[in-house]
Amino acid sequence: MSSVWGEHIKISVFGESHGSCIGVVVDGLPAGIQLDLAKINQEMARRRPGQDIYTTQRKEADRVEIVSGFFNGCTTGAPLCGIIKNSDKRSVDYEDIKNIMRPGHADYTGFIRYKGFADYRGGGHFSGRLTAPVVFAGAIANQYLEQKRIIIGTHLLRIGQVQDAPVDPVNISAGELLNFRSMRFPVFSSETAEQMKEEINNARMDCDSVGGILETVILNLPAGLGSPMFKSVESRMAAFVFSIPAVKGIEFGSGFNLASMRGSEANDEFYIVKEGNEKIPCTRTNHSGGINGGITNGMPVLFRTCIKPTSTISKPQHTININTMEETEHVFKGRHDPCIAVRAVPVIDAASALVVMDLLLERGG
Amino acid sequence: MSSVWGEHIKISVFGESHGSCIGVVVDGLPAGIQLDLAKINQEMARRRPGQDIYTTQRKEADRVEIVSGFFNGCTTGAPLCGIIKNSDKRSVDYEDIKNIMRPGHADYTGFIRYKGFADYRGGGHFSGRLTAPVVFAGAIANQYLEQKRIIIGTHLLRIGQVQDAPVDPVNISAGELLNFRSMRFPVFSSETAEQMKEEINNARMDCDSVGGILETVILNLPAGLGSPMFKSVESRMAAFVFSIPAVKGIEFGSGFNLASMRGSEANDEFYIVKEGNEKIPCTRTNHSGGINGGITNGMPVLFRTCIKPTSTISKPQHTININTMEETEHVFKGRHDPCIAVRAVPVIDAASALVVMDLLLERGG
Amino acid sequence: MSSVWGEHIKISVFGESHGSCIGVVVDGLPAGIQLDLAKINQEMARRRPGQDIYTTQRKEADRVEIVSGFFNGCTTGAPLCGIIKNSDKRSVDYEDIKNIMRPGHADYTGFIRYKGFADYRGGGHFSGRLTAPVVFAGAIANQYLEQKRIIIGTHLLRIGQVQDAPVDPVNISAGELLNFRSMRFPVFSSETAEQMKEEINNARMDCDSVGGILETVILNLPAGLGSPMFKSVESRMAAFVFSIPAVKGIEFGSGFNLASMRGSEANDEFYIVKEGNEKIPCTRTNHSGGINGGITNGMPVLFRTCIKPTSTISKPQHTININTMEETEHVFKGRHDPCIAVRAVPVIDAASALVVMDLLLERGG
Amino acid sequence: MSSVWGEHIKISVFGESHGSCIGVVVDGLPAGIQLDLAKINQEMARRRPGQDIYTTQRKEADRVEIVSGFFNGCTTGAPLCGIIKNSDKRSVDYEDIKNIMRPGHADYTGFIRYKGFADYRGGGHFSGRLTAPVVFAGAIANQYLEQKRIIIGTHLLRIGQVQDAPVDPVNISAGELLNFRSMRFPVFSSETAEQMKEEINNARMDCDSVGGILETVILNLPAGLGSPMFKSVESRMAAFVFSIPAVKGIEFGSGFNLASMRGSEANDEFYIVKEGNEKIPCTRTNHSGGINGGITNGMPVLFRTCIKPTSTISKPQHTININTMEETEHVFKGRHDPCIAVRAVPVIDAASALVVMDLLLERGG
Repeated sequence: MSSVWGEHIKISVFGESHGSCIGVVVDGLPAGIQLDLAKINQEMARRRPGQDIYTTQRKEADRVEIVSGFFNGCTTGAPLCGIIKNSDKRSVDYEDIKNIMRPGHADYTGFIRYKGFADYRGGGHFSGRLTAPVVFAGAIANQYLEQKRIIIGTHLLRIGQVQDAPVDPVNISAGELLNFRSMRFPVFSSETAEQMKEEINNARMDCDSVGGILETVILNLPAGLGSPMFKSVESRMAAFVFSIPAVKGIEFGSGFNLASMRGSEANDEFYIVKEGNEKIPCTRTNHSGGINGGITNGMPVLFRTCIKPTSTISKPQHTININTMEETEHVFKGRHDPCIAVRAVPVIDAASALVVMDLLLERGG
Repeated sequence: MSSVWGEHIKISVFGESHGSCIGVVVDGLPAGIQLDLAKINQEMARRRPGQDIYTTQRKEADRVEIVSGFFNGCTTGAPLCGIIKNSDKRSVDYEDIKNIMRPGHADYTGFIRYKGFADYRGGGHFSGRLTAPVVFAGAIANQYLEQKRIIIGTHLLRIGQVQDAPVDPVNISAGELLNFRSMRFPVFSSETAEQMKEEINNARMDCDSVGGILETVILNLPAGLGSPMFKSVESRMAAFVFSIPAVKGIEFGSGFNLASMRGSEANDEFYIVKEGNEKIPCTRTNHSGGINGGITNGMPVLFRTCIKPTSTISKPQHTININTMEETEHVFKGRHDPCIAVRAVPVIDAASALVVMDLLLERGG
Repeated sequence: MSSVWGEHIKISVFGESHGSCIGVVVDGLPAGIQLDLAKINQEMARRRPGQDIYTTQRKEADRVEIVSGFFNGCTTGAPLCGIIKNSDKRSVDYEDIKNIMRPGHADYTGFIRYKGFADYRGGGHFSGRLTAPVVFAGAIANQYLEQKRIIIGTHLLRIGQVQDAPVDPVNISAGELLNFRSMRFPVFSSETAEQMKEEINNARMDCDSVGGILETVILNLPAGLGSPMFKSVESRMAAFVFSIPAVKGIEFGSGFNLASMRGSEANDEFYIVKEGNEKIPCTRTNHSGGINGGITNGMPVLFRTCIKPTSTISKPQHTININTMEETEHVFKGRHDPCIAVRAVPVIDAASALVVMDLLLERGG
Repeated sequence: MSSVWGEHIKISVFGESHGSCIGVVVDGLPAGIQLDLAKINQEMARRRPGQDIYTTQRKEADRVEIVSGFFNGCTTGAPLCGIIKNSDKRSVDYEDIKNIMRPGHADYTGFIRYKGFADYRGGGHFSGRLTAPVVFAGAIANQYLEQKRIIIGTHLLRIGQVQDAPVDPVNISAGELLNFRSMRFPVFSSETAEQMKEEINNARMDCDSVGGILETVILNLPAGLGSPMFKSVESRMAAFVFSIPAVKGIEFGSGFNLASMRGSEANDEFYIVKEGNEKIPCTRTNHSGGINGGITNGMPVLFRTCIKPTSTISKPQHTININTMEETEHVFKGRHDPCIAVRAVPVIDAASALVVMDLLLERGG
């Protein structure tokens, strides 16, 4: 049981890379959320493959058909199911190699876990293609959040050896985040974008792939979301984020750098901001990433996600045949992203939106 | 709802730093696990405070009284409840400062979340003291795992500026892990241990604290545990680990370093190991930390956890009074660990044991 | 969050009576269950409407398209999604009456719960039509159970004033249960079937409807399934069965009759049955319905479900208009079953199969 | 995993009949519920054994010590743990008979389920004694409900052959329910109470026991609680109620009588009640027990629970020895209730309070 997530909303993801369709059931949506389908399609487009040389050449329209839970322009409160057709399948690519365990992929672990019965074509249910329904569900959550002025945005902090400027953890603005959402290579400077593209293209030319780091910010969360211990914001965000293929690390606020710090540096000191008659506690620094004791403190929530290089590469690799149990050399052909980190951006945004919506619904919405 | 965890075993943690006792109910334990109480006490001792200058001076015996689910030396299958008395409380320390929001702590977020009704003494339910019942529950899980030859161990990879050698992700041995478990400063070289102690003592002398990184290995896990997507091993381990106070980051295998790698480097190539008549797929490298597609591949599971510096320090800090809503300068007195990373080691081991037991029970034990 | 069920398998049901399609995602199915699609269609046919005057005249083929989790004739272990088209919709029937709260229906409670946003056509997600995906999921579970020789069957114990003979709670045979499954009016005597049909037809001629009681037996369950307290077999079965529209009561074994009994009568005395060298504890009576302390004892599990008369009737009824908040008299037109108990039979069988499969998977399958 | 319940509050029950103590952790309580401990003790007293000849002679003070989650008279929002000492144990009673499977009890099923490791003394974790922590948790929930004017009450509708008048399902008053809560034999007429006592005493004199039916009403629930399908109010109430030992049936509203009704009789027609300027939809009858489509409609919620005769009786019974696997005749000595239905009343009230609180918290409290 793997593809069901959530407490106050639940999503159930289904489908395989080379099946007839993929999709998601979103259960627990409040009734009456007005959905702007154009905006949903926009989110889908951010993740859509086949758009340039930096992504896989598989062409998919990725149009979602909503078959339930949506009536007269609004959510009904009943489970909302969205279905996406798979159109550009080349399953024949995989028949030859079904017994070859591709390094870095889930071929071997999936074989053991599912006793050889899994659909091996294109990674089956393990495929990154399954993030499309997640982006769809996240796009719905995002419309709910926008009504509450909550803004989520992610940029490419690093691709291979190329580093973007980090966000300002205290003063990052909604405008900057929205800007990230509108870019295919969300970075602070266009120069960095060019360097990153070159980095990716170099990997591609080398029949290789490259990894990256994403930096995500969530603005305007109220203080008081989450709980200590097992329902901490970090626990819930991390649990979702690690469900996205290729993610191997997550850190909040100053993250691993905190190991080298002293408490006097790492502690975010409070001060009072006056807005009209209201006094709002804020912190001057934000090493904690907006979360203390598992609960939001009203500052920007900030985390970084590490994405490993795409496992599929066109270089020859040493591996095994699970049928003959012999070692073999193999070159994998097939379409793939030379750097999956780029298309992971809208997926992380979607994950964030779903986690935040779940947190809000826990407090009565 | 925060302090209940698990799917196939469930733990429910209760208590506050300055209440009469703390404890945990462990539900779903298989009947017939023989428990060696001396070994459980040994685990408790690893986390126990007041043992030297590198930890808080609060003295607690941390003896667990098992009041249910245990009969004739074995688990009965009924919920097992363990209770630990709080003996060395100095609640008066906290009366004066109950309205002062200590930077880095959950005072402010807890105040908002629980509308001022939380027990503020010593951090209440947010206190690191609540990791004692987790260690107890983990010690039970560990005895279950030992029967299956699964070994877990953690060392201090970094304290402040001092770095230990990393484990060999492929060849780390059970002996080395068991050695870690027997040490109060689990590191590879005693020289490093001395440097770390000095680093901590320096922070202590400066009325300050310091952070660290722990590196954990789980040996002899069968291939095939976990699932793709939301039940990935990474998701489940991260969700638990982020419930431990002061954790701000986790990475598996080569973690954040994967961002700079090429796929040809990051992919762990398979080869065949022959044991008698059996042929076992293994990988020559272990950048994936023993997990592909959310599922164990039989190689050592390896992850690193970042622990921030203890929030409690004796230096003056700027903060706010939540009652008057005014800014204030304050020096916090009270006992605390100058480096909580040291005592986090057995907690991470316990978390790992519980997560692995849950994974195993999912496959029928 | 309403339409997600299960612990070791999870089902997520979606769709509305008058949407484009309905369906279900079944997550957690073990890999490698061979599925006989003809048998699944047979189960679907048992519930299908429009077959005679005793059921609604809505015609639906109720063919299920499996879009995921099924490959080369077997389950893959990935979520299995089945989709059923809605073909015979007459949504126009409902436009006029969308503000008229039909007595006995969920129109009013749904209006409050979903703030007027629910799809009111044909009951929307509340419709009995949503039991079709449940029957599909149950048919899969049933194929899993058949491999373990577990047999489930239900008969119509009562329709209105007509009573069938009760099953023998100790000696009921697999043959009798399989016979029930093959009948559209599963009863012991054909004479009773005729009387029941007459009872239903009388109600139909009176523009009215009639209720019934179903009696279900599960044979060959191993002893030891379930748990005390909140995971009792009764708790889990009842929770599912009460999710089926029109169910208002459930009793296990001798049920409500136990209230009038003495313990000396109600207690099922044990004796030993020898099968070859094996000695098997059995009970001479079965007042407990095969369950003691929430756990199966190896005897037939037996329960009875009460189904209220179909809420939709063609007689004039007094009710309210939720828009004008005025009282009104109304005659409802639209297709409906004069006795929904008949078509509830395969739904209860499906529910039973899913609950039993969940219980078995809890013990490792 | 059996003794954890709940979604928006979670309770985790622990302990055995003859252990040192029993108790419960209640997780998810909102902060700031003022608790009247005297009222909690009053609820405990309603269930307490040893008070007269109609209940077991085991004497227990049943005082609850709250060890966490309670501070300055209010809930803190942290897990609240209540512990109850077992003082009057006579474990020696059980040593002789540990291999004798008492008919009607969970001795045999528990033996299979827990492979002989369960604590057999006094039924261990299966004991009705474990309902004491449930009553405690329910008493807390009840104080939360009282602030919202929600009133719960239960009477003895039947004991053996003696029947009380049923409640008026439409006009039952809060006063009547509160009156039930104040009585040890909650019935409408004192004459019935005397007859019931005689019925119980007759069973007792015959070394036998007798069953009963409880009728429960919940007043002043808002319309709109619950959901269709798996989160129906009936599903959730039934799941909890069947966790109480000896419960074998539950029916809502007119329950099993609905089987013999026509729809025109069973449908509760709506009308409008004016309260000041407000117009409130009500129904003239209440065959649905206040629930349509799984959701409350604002009318009294009404259900009946069947309690089987106490399994422990002093008459000789035929059974088996699980060790020798031979049949045997046995007379069980030990203290027990001749009619457990009487002491089940406060347990059903507690279950109802917890389920209703969970339903309310789902809507934000």
